[in-house]
Amino acid sequence: MSAEQTQEENVPVIYIGKKPLIRYVMAAMAIILNEAPKKLKISARGRAISRAVDVAEVLRTRYLPGIIDVEDIKIGTDEIRNPQDPNRIDRVSTIEITLIKKRDIVPTEAKSS
Amino acid sequence: MSAEQTQEENVPVIYIGKKPLIRYVMAAMAIILNEAPKKLKISARGRAISRAVDVAEVLRTRYLPGIIDVEDIKIGTDEIRNPQDPNRIDRVSTIEITLIKKRDIVPTEAKSS
Repeated sequence: MSAEQTQEENVPVIYIGKKPLIRYVMAAMAIILNEAPKKLKISARGRAISRAVDVAEVLRTRYLPGIIDVEDIKIGTDEIRNPQDPNRIDRVSTIEITLIKKRDIVPTEAKSS
Repeated sequence: MSAEQTQEENVPVIYIGKKPLIRYVMAAMAIILNEAPKKLKISARGRAISRAVDVAEVLRTRYLPGIIDVEDIKIGTDEIRNPQDPNRIDRVSTIEITLIKKRDIVPTEAKSS
């Protein structure tokens, strides 16, 4: 699981596959807390689209409520060559969810005594 | 499979479940051709979210290219009481895709001889 940066905007992207939901949520949390990007994209194809929506919703409602919000959602269709039959083109739906940070996460000051 | 109308806007809604993709595409086509609404919503929960995106994309790219477009996509979370354990609340992600007609479908005139 790795996050790539889109060239134009420098927005990290998490690609959703078949791993358990929590793995993607934790990857997103790590990026948000360590790299402190303004935006984060969640990208998926085919059946993983449902999980991409789950990742966005779990982040928005449970882990970072009031901190991140959905800025934009795009859907599309990718055409990919069938691996069994190179003459056949398969179509697969895609989703890209852009999350935006509404405010910064301010760490509470460590108690000094 | 039935289409309901939302009160405020009078926009027909197709709810996506576990039936084959083509059934929902055909239902959408029937509504678009017969009722000629300006907009049509496609709504789904949980794993059916991927199929909802498929329905929108198949309509947009294959059946009605240049005629319909995606106007808006909303995602959310529904809280539903667990049927086995009424004290437990399950969360399920939702999607609502609003399709808009960019131009009317003009039937070609029947040849008279």
